[in-house]
Amino acid sequence: MKHMHYTEVEEQIPAEEGVRDVTVRWAISEKDGAKNFAMRVFTFQPGGHTPHHKHDWEHEIFVLEGNGILRSEEKREPLRPGDFMFIKPGEMHQMRNESDRVFRVICLIPYKK
Amino acid sequence: MKHMHYTEVEEQIPAEEGVRDVTVRWAISEKDGAKNFAMRVFTFQPGGHTPHHKHDWEHEIFVLEGNGILRSEEKREPLRPGDFMFIKPGEMHQMRNESDRVFRVICLIPYKK
Repeated sequence: MKHMHYTEVEEQIPAEEGVRDVTVRWAISEKDGAKNFAMRVFTFQPGGHTPHHKHDWEHEIFVLEGNGILRSEEKREPLRPGDFMFIKPGEMHQMRNESDRVFRVICLIPYKK
Repeated sequence: MKHMHYTEVEEQIPAEEGVRDVTVRWAISEKDGAKNFAMRVFTFQPGGHTPHHKHDWEHEIFVLEGNGILRSEEKREPLRPGDFMFIKPGEMHQMRNESDRVFRVICLIPYKK
């Protein structure tokens, strides 16, 4: 059993192109023996965003703190704490922090079989 | 893409034996096309708890609100917002709300392959 507070997890800069002012903490991953899916905590500073992109795996996201924007193929939706999203494989998406406070989410991804 | 606030999801009473004063909301499940894992939101009223049990799948849990207790095989640990847990297949576990306020977590489980 692993039990920690997310702030105890090392904060990393995602290597992916198109990410700005965002950090990631890999809370639960293959290193812990998680074989099916991983839990990451993303922190967006004001002005921070992920790329507007798509990929062949899904996201399951839950908003913890602050206010953000979900940009999809055609629209922009406000995000607030308690919101959750299921982004299917192949769907265009981006998260943006256009506020003046931190925006924080959990984002889970599958490990490929 | 599915985007909702968790309070918009129907609150259900878990059918499992040994659950007391706990509700579950299936935020993301197979019904949404999630093939690999499901996201549920559990709300524990004061005095509420899940069974002290084990099973052959893992949990990935994140504490959203309130204070709880994680009971494992041999010990009890306090839980607070921002805590996360990886409970491996076969590990004994229980979550309890011994406080006088609501305790709320996200708990994700895999779909079997």
